[in-house]
Amino acid sequence: MKAIVNVFLKEGVLDPQGKAVHHALASLNFNDVKDVRIGKQIILELTANDKTRAEAEVKEMCETLLANTVIEDYSIEIA
Amino acid sequence: MKAIVNVFLKEGVLDPQGKAVHHALASLNFNDVKDVRIGKQIILELTANDKTRAEAEVKEMCETLLANTVIEDYSIEIA
Repeated sequence: MKAIVNVFLKEGVLDPQGKAVHHALASLNFNDVKDVRIGKQIILELTANDKTRAEAEVKEMCETLLANTVIEDYSIEIA
Repeated sequence: MKAIVNVFLKEGVLDPQGKAVHHALASLNFNDVKDVRIGKQIILELTANDKTRAEAEVKEMCETLLANTVIEDYSIEIA
């Protein structure tokens, strides 16, 4: 079972990596970019077969390690 | 228009960040994780309204800046 976790800075939190990419794109003449935000995508290969249990476990992983919940939001997708 | 770009290390390319997270999860007693891969997710806010043109432009951005195509693969999703 595969879990896809997307971790993003919360709205309003400054994203310097995104800003840097935005500037770099502008300097390469990609001018119709309004905003860039950069996050992490974490793909976990799990041995568990129970979708509900897997989701609960991945949620705990996010809360304890994968995301800094003070400044980051996350979403979990079980495939 | 919003474009979501996922950038991942190619199969077979060592992912040290993923390995580190895998070990950290194991040390926190999350033992049913088989593998972890970590990539970037880039969300671009575009002014363009034409989906086909937007996709072509984002592909060019990936080839020139967003992904290192020697070791990374990318996927583009236009929303």
